[in-house]
Amino acid sequence: MAKRDVCVIGVGMTKFERCERDFTELVHEAVGDALKMSGVAPDALEQAFAGYVNGMSTQGQRALYGMGIGGLPVYNVHNYCSTGSTALHLGYQAIAGGMNECVLAFGFEKMQKGPLEKQLTGLDDIAKETDKGAPPIAARMFGDGGRQHMELYGTTKEQFAKVSVKNHRHSVNNPRSQYREACTLEEVLASRMVYEPLTILQCCPTSDGAGAAILCSEEFARKQGISKPVKIVAQAMQTDHLEDFAMGSLGWIGIGMSRRAAQKVYEQAGLGPKDVDIIELHDCFSTNELVTYESLGLCKDGEGGRLIDEDQVTYGGKWVVNPSGGLLSKGHPLGATGLAQCAELVWQLNGMAEKRQVEGARVALQHNVGLGGACVVTMYRKG
Amino acid sequence: MAKRDVCVIGVGMTKFERCERDFTELVHEAVGDALKMSGVAPDALEQAFAGYVNGMSTQGQRALYGMGIGGLPVYNVHNYCSTGSTALHLGYQAIAGGMNECVLAFGFEKMQKGPLEKQLTGLDDIAKETDKGAPPIAARMFGDGGRQHMELYGTTKEQFAKVSVKNHRHSVNNPRSQYREACTLEEVLASRMVYEPLTILQCCPTSDGAGAAILCSEEFARKQGISKPVKIVAQAMQTDHLEDFAMGSLGWIGIGMSRRAAQKVYEQAGLGPKDVDIIELHDCFSTNELVTYESLGLCKDGEGGRLIDEDQVTYGGKWVVNPSGGLLSKGHPLGATGLAQCAELVWQLNGMAEKRQVEGARVALQHNVGLGGACVVTMYRKG
Repeated sequence: MAKRDVCVIGVGMTKFERCERDFTELVHEAVGDALKMSGVAPDALEQAFAGYVNGMSTQGQRALYGMGIGGLPVYNVHNYCSTGSTALHLGYQAIAGGMNECVLAFGFEKMQKGPLEKQLTGLDDIAKETDKGAPPIAARMFGDGGRQHMELYGTTKEQFAKVSVKNHRHSVNNPRSQYREACTLEEVLASRMVYEPLTILQCCPTSDGAGAAILCSEEFARKQGISKPVKIVAQAMQTDHLEDFAMGSLGWIGIGMSRRAAQKVYEQAGLGPKDVDIIELHDCFSTNELVTYESLGLCKDGEGGRLIDEDQVTYGGKWVVNPSGGLLSKGHPLGATGLAQCAELVWQLNGMAEKRQVEGARVALQHNVGLGGACVVTMYRKG
Repeated sequence: MAKRDVCVIGVGMTKFERCERDFTELVHEAVGDALKMSGVAPDALEQAFAGYVNGMSTQGQRALYGMGIGGLPVYNVHNYCSTGSTALHLGYQAIAGGMNECVLAFGFEKMQKGPLEKQLTGLDDIAKETDKGAPPIAARMFGDGGRQHMELYGTTKEQFAKVSVKNHRHSVNNPRSQYREACTLEEVLASRMVYEPLTILQCCPTSDGAGAAILCSEEFARKQGISKPVKIVAQAMQTDHLEDFAMGSLGWIGIGMSRRAAQKVYEQAGLGPKDVDIIELHDCFSTNELVTYESLGLCKDGEGGRLIDEDQVTYGGKWVVNPSGGLLSKGHPLGATGLAQCAELVWQLNGMAEKRQVEGARVALQHNVGLGGACVVTMYRKG
């Protein structure tokens, strides 16, 4: 499908945290930093793709107008938790298909208080249950997916908890992470139970934030004086197939779309899981990270627990998964998450990740999934 | 920017009206009709672009899953009143840039009760004013734009009212129009005053509905056995420039972005206003239709009133503007409007518009604008 490679010459993201700043301030920081890194003048941007879930329409324009950027086409897009990657994927296609030479993808979110179902219209019944003490719907779904994995493959609650230990440990070195404290396996397991097997330290926090990426053609990058830009060599989005839901709880958390999107990316790139060095994946809950090892083909079905036990997914292992701290520790402002994953991988491939730098990283994979649903998988290569 | 022409081989829309049917039912009808007209099997759709303003995220997927359509990438997009055309423009680019051979653009809206500001978060102060009896914000903005036009050019309230008379008359022949009754100039002027110079018959109604279009490459159309498909020969989106707002009330209703989008389309197509036969434009209020004659270059600034006085914009004139009845009479479900305009023009260019057929129409223009904002202008040519 892609006609040409797409370069990512600038990225930016705010620190993820609960904050008083409004969405325009968050966007100005993230987009401003991405423009600065790229050296691109705002009037060179031909189109902009803005991702966010909560808020009025045309907030993408409003944020850009505040930076003095107007006139260009702006698309406001969303796909729940994969909203940021949805914006990124549209930007990718604009360059890959040759429609544009340089575009902006950005995303932001000011999360409301409380679990997701209380922030969104149409989930009134579930919101009422949550008010009465039922766990949030997302925790129930990803908890059920984890339980099915335990039943099918003997995965243990300790293995899920180790994912959280790893990602919190990684986040110690990320100044943009919402949480930056390491925790022990015992602390993760002993923290408040939200929904079996998920304790609170295995659930991502509620976060505000923004992220941005400047995408362009190789020719445009060369003209900018950037000789070896990081490139997106493959990207694919998939949504649920109806038969996915027959897989039980694992199907409901999107393993079908994750697998198909990853497979498409490997085919497009002519590379496989073994060629990948570093991964940012959608660990909204610890269970989903472990399940996603399998969806991305890092191991066979049922072997996710082994990977975490053998330290294959952290510094010193075959892959470093979620060096940023992931959603679990860095935070998860829906519209920003996919762009923050992109930012982390571009920094890593450019050798700009400071204390959390993965040495020698050449190929990176990004996985961002939203229930409802959409999954975007992206492969990047060092320039 | 465009690499190749884009064919529109199937369109569909529901009747616009206030109804009990939910959005999934509306989408099934519109998308089902578009697929039927095109003869395309659902599994040939490579991507889908879903436009709507009100509602949860991923409703585009939910509507398609209900038709048994899953797996393909689905993008949920919005840009207030130009939401439908935003979906259409993304679909157009997917084909024009060569990323896809066949895609679906669709849009829908279940409007809530009351004026727009009461349906959307973030407009709380304006909603309170409206509760206290102030006119809805959109009526105020488009009314002020009309008043500025009166002051600058001597346009009369009768000229604005004649736009409504024309569009209500056109809608008599459109079975999908929310209103289908002709009205006299006296009735329009005597109807309840909303905000000077806009009486209630010069304001679009609150509507539910859905629209859809199947877009493809010329090669794909040929393989479908469609020898002479209607083509989009040019399309452009523009947002506000910051200096537009210095134009006063007319700037705030988007004449800057309308002009620039139209200009880009004429340049891309190598055709001008004189080559156009038929137009669907954004007459959310009567004032905006008259102002848009000028933005689209049908006449010089200040001459819009003359066009309507001389019957140049109805059957028998130089152009037939809003043969469907327009937003004023047909209705305006935000996400559906841009796709309904597309449907009308494709039916017209295919000679399928029954009693409202514009004989000999070969070139058509579509104009859809949303404050905040975005304007999409599209040019179609008969196959």
